[in-house]
Amino acid sequence: MELKDSNWSELEKKVAKSALDKSRKRESAALIEMVRNRAKEITKLDDLWYLHDFLSARRYDLDGKYDEEGLGFIFVLAGLVKDSWLDSADLEGLETDKLKKIKALTLM
Amino acid sequence: MELKDSNWSELEKKVAKSALDKSRKRESAALIEMVRNRAKEITKLDDLWYLHDFLSARRYDLDGKYDEEGLGFIFVLAGLVKDSWLDSADLEGLETDKLKKIKALTLM
Repeated sequence: MELKDSNWSELEKKVAKSALDKSRKRESAALIEMVRNRAKEITKLDDLWYLHDFLSARRYDLDGKYDEEGLGFIFVLAGLVKDSWLDSADLEGLETDKLKKIKALTLM
Repeated sequence: MELKDSNWSELEKKVAKSALDKSRKRESAALIEMVRNRAKEITKLDDLWYLHDFLSARRYDLDGKYDEEGLGFIFVLAGLVKDSWLDSADLEGLETDKLKKIKALTLM
């Protein structure tokens, strides 16, 4: 299976970038909501450092996750579909071959 | 000025440890309150990473700040008085010479 991002039409690149953008916004909003809720329950310093560790991990994850330059659109999009930040409707406009690759990766 | 922790009576050590404990609790409570309030205002990812950076800095600071083994009681207590986490009432029981040293350090 060839996973490299060769032969992406301009439309497909636009679809992929737009899907990434949507996903980033959804994931950021969910994270912010979670932190706002967790913060309400902080009563001791250990809770605060737990939140700090959690943010360190999420920041590291998010910083790398949307880096389509590094991983290639197929991998990035597949990861986001797997984690339910994107669904097939968000990928409309990609050619069948790419959708199949994305689907295959989400099943791994 | 001799700042080493020589010649501390058992009572004085107890006073110093109790003052440190009070200060740590006050400072932790203030920090938790601040984070809970800041968290309410987070609306975007940048705000979240700002909070993360802030927590990294405060954690580093707090981890070292109450380390009486490393710095000696006089320095630690002086720092906390300077930052208004302790006042003279919290240091009652220390001998005059130590109180003078603490006072002198808070003015530096």
